[in-house]
Amino acid sequence: MPIDVDAVAGKEFEPAEGGWVEKDVILYALGLGVGVDAPATDPAVLQYTYEGFKPGFHAVPTFGVIPVFSTLYGTFSIPGFDVDPMMILHGEQSLDVLCDEIPTKANVVTRAKISGVYDKGKGALIVVEATTADKETGKDLFRNEFGIFARGEGGFGGESGPPAGNVAPDRAPDASVETPTRLDQAVLYRLSGDWNPLHVDPEWTQFGGLDRPILHGLCTFGNVGRAVVAAMCDNDPTRFRSIKARFSASVMPGETIITDMWKESDTDIIVSARLKERDAVVVKNSRVTISA
Amino acid sequence: MPIDVDAVAGKEFEPAEGGWVEKDVILYALGLGVGVDAPATDPAVLQYTYEGFKPGFHAVPTFGVIPVFSTLYGTFSIPGFDVDPMMILHGEQSLDVLCDEIPTKANVVTRAKISGVYDKGKGALIVVEATTADKETGKDLFRNEFGIFARGEGGFGGESGPPAGNVAPDRAPDASVETPTRLDQAVLYRLSGDWNPLHVDPEWTQFGGLDRPILHGLCTFGNVGRAVVAAMCDNDPTRFRSIKARFSASVMPGETIITDMWKESDTDIIVSARLKERDAVVVKNSRVTISA
Repeated sequence: MPIDVDAVAGKEFEPAEGGWVEKDVILYALGLGVGVDAPATDPAVLQYTYEGFKPGFHAVPTFGVIPVFSTLYGTFSIPGFDVDPMMILHGEQSLDVLCDEIPTKANVVTRAKISGVYDKGKGALIVVEATTADKETGKDLFRNEFGIFARGEGGFGGESGPPAGNVAPDRAPDASVETPTRLDQAVLYRLSGDWNPLHVDPEWTQFGGLDRPILHGLCTFGNVGRAVVAAMCDNDPTRFRSIKARFSASVMPGETIITDMWKESDTDIIVSARLKERDAVVVKNSRVTISA
Repeated sequence: MPIDVDAVAGKEFEPAEGGWVEKDVILYALGLGVGVDAPATDPAVLQYTYEGFKPGFHAVPTFGVIPVFSTLYGTFSIPGFDVDPMMILHGEQSLDVLCDEIPTKANVVTRAKISGVYDKGKGALIVVEATTADKETGKDLFRNEFGIFARGEGGFGGESGPPAGNVAPDRAPDASVETPTRLDQAVLYRLSGDWNPLHVDPEWTQFGGLDRPILHGLCTFGNVGRAVVAAMCDNDPTRFRSIKARFSASVMPGETIITDMWKESDTDIIVSARLKERDAVVVKNSRVTISA
């Protein structure tokens, strides 16, 4: 079996230093598509795209995945993790904000480990947990969990892990937000650090059996988070506390993501996302928490 | 007189080190609007936006202004140059490629000086000449000339400088290229280094007497150069040799730039640019040279 569960589970990564500045935060917002559906002079756009915006400049809160993303590549250098990268899917992603608000610039240290290896039958789910702290103060800023699905690596008799949960109730959503993307959205999004040619190279895409390059799952993820901030937080990103999302299908650049939201309480929102242009659910069994 | 011509003319700046990588080159291309009017899978888009593009990844040749742009700010610290920054306009810009092709990554040293101070009556034209060389080899890569127009600073009895020249012939252009821009084009372009709030902040813009934030002159400049590469060089940016452009009006984000071209020879092209949406000439008395 290519994954040696005993060797991989619990494995800790070397602490990784990093950082970002306002430009990175703005580039991420534009990579999601902020500004596509609203004028550049709209406060809802300016708060994410103009570092001098007077009422306040903010990171789209899901920016917290960006400084940690490259940690994932480290997975492939773990002894006992012998998996074909072409068989890997980004299955799940969660992010918890552990401070008042994701800062718009910071120097950080990230500590990561393999927090779980689950047997899902058709494949294995490997969970990488990464906690990022401010380098100067040592204060935790946010925690990511990356759920990597390795196709064909299941059936080793391991635990199947917690159930998906976060099932949408059987009623119309309390709110739905449409988020259009651009035909070249992936070309811009990838500048935030995911340079996988699958999202830009037509030849590579054909190799993967797709018609044309697909949008990054984390671009969809960011737009789902942003939609909840818009509909449930009066566009105040400081109220965003956490997101746990499960990817179920790919989005093509240019398609419009519709995020459906069901309030469980003033702070807990069940979410899923579908496409306007075709019958596909792209995010499901997902949850966002906010401050009341 | 706020400009002490004897003190300013010929003044040399301290050599400035800098550099760029592929990401900067792609961000610049997207800031111009590459990908707005063509699919992300079009080779004409991929050659400027995908670092792994097989036939070849290239910088839009006008990228050569970007690493040098901040040099301009140094002008304001020259003794004898006591000018209100609010009265400054970017009047002219030229760029000469001195190597085979602008590299997609490099470490460089730029040497700049004030090469001219001219009396234009209504204002003074200050020309900053900056030559950028590869740091390792010492080989010259490109030379910029920034023409800064200081309103209200003319009439000091100085030379008026060379005439504009590059007059378009009295016949229909040999080629015209339409380049659409996005409503948030300036928000993306400014990430390449011109953070002037005039291009993003609605309040600042009203202070300047404008309806809404204007597009950067150098964004228009880059699109004019790119249009010539498309129409006159079979989209081969390595054939681009030089551009000398004069800005005559502002472009608003979202407007479509139409670049008109007249061939003087196989290598010399007179250019001007206008807007599709309203009657305005935004670039005139300008010239691009290419290799045959």
